[in-house]
Amino acid sequence: MKGWLITLEGPEGAGKSTQIRRLHEYLESQGIPCMCTREPGGTAVGDRIREILLAPELTEMTLKAEVLLYAASRAQLVEEVIRPALASGKLVLCDRFVDSSIVYQGLGPEDGNRQEVEEINQVALGGLQADRTYLLDLSVEDGDRRLAARGYVDRMEAKGKQFHERVRQGFLALARENHQRIRVIDASQDEDVVFAALCEEVMDLIGKN
Amino acid sequence: MKGWLITLEGPEGAGKSTQIRRLHEYLESQGIPCMCTREPGGTAVGDRIREILLAPELTEMTLKAEVLLYAASRAQLVEEVIRPALASGKLVLCDRFVDSSIVYQGLGPEDGNRQEVEEINQVALGGLQADRTYLLDLSVEDGDRRLAARGYVDRMEAKGKQFHERVRQGFLALARENHQRIRVIDASQDEDVVFAALCEEVMDLIGKN
Repeated sequence: MKGWLITLEGPEGAGKSTQIRRLHEYLESQGIPCMCTREPGGTAVGDRIREILLAPELTEMTLKAEVLLYAASRAQLVEEVIRPALASGKLVLCDRFVDSSIVYQGLGPEDGNRQEVEEINQVALGGLQADRTYLLDLSVEDGDRRLAARGYVDRMEAKGKQFHERVRQGFLALARENHQRIRVIDASQDEDVVFAALCEEVMDLIGKN
Repeated sequence: MKGWLITLEGPEGAGKSTQIRRLHEYLESQGIPCMCTREPGGTAVGDRIREILLAPELTEMTLKAEVLLYAASRAQLVEEVIRPALASGKLVLCDRFVDSSIVYQGLGPEDGNRQEVEEINQVALGGLQADRTYLLDLSVEDGDRRLAARGYVDRMEAKGKQFHERVRQGFLALARENHQRIRVIDASQDEDVVFAALCEEVMDLIGKN
């Protein structure tokens, strides 16, 4: 018995959380054993690490410490939750996974080091790879409009437009390098259109179409 | 201007903290700019990581997550504290450093992976290496007697005699592999004898003898 590991990637505002929630409900309605996880967190150890990563007072955190903390949370999630779920035949949906680390910590920051991020995460994952990754691609401008509508207005101020442009291009570069694993979905489309595309892709992947 | 990074290693009970405190006082009395750090911790980020590593309720923490958390604390300490102190010409004394990770997480546990621990820490350190490491070597039996005298009685029960024997042999193996950097000091000797040996070694290293 062997499950599937499916990850959703893309910028904030692309609709990952909404799509994962709907996909989870849909798969369950089809009788497919399924679970969702989130990063960082998803375990007791990971939730404690999440608190550190999101603590507003720890402004002096270095990029390397951040990379290692995300990887620690991921290593715990993989061994405690994901591997046992896959072994029991479940389909596991992850809201962000290792591609987010490569992009947000390796390719986005000016002092990022993609190779180091990949090395650390290879150890953290111990050979595990997603069976399929859906990249919900969205322009920086569209992402910003959606976040502004949700009441988040300081994203551009915090990191800058160039950072978010490098993030988008980084995700697209990963998709080109891993075209078997990563499928790009245009997230500027209507939510229902994106959901229909995702459902078809996933049912196809698991041989239910 | 360039300082010195000196690390003290060895099992619990070998007297590292006492010797570092005395060494710090001695060096200051000689007018040598000097500071002490401890691991995990030594920074605001590291202290938060330390809380996770020492939380008794997080019994399910995996070995990989532990390795990555120690490395995150170390990366933060190196960039925020140690590198600036060395750049200003200080002598930095560390109570445990990367050798402890290699030994306690790579060589001591039955499922330890020395190569992974070294890879992760190479990233965390970014090329920094101790100028000199003093290994306070002590037999498992002597260490246990000292810890029992301090009121710690469950060390053997927690990890087992074989683990602590592998830790001792692991430290000694590292000392043989890195004989230019690591000096072994017999920590079963009287505290004052150990201190005198350390002082002579350190003053020799920094050219003050």
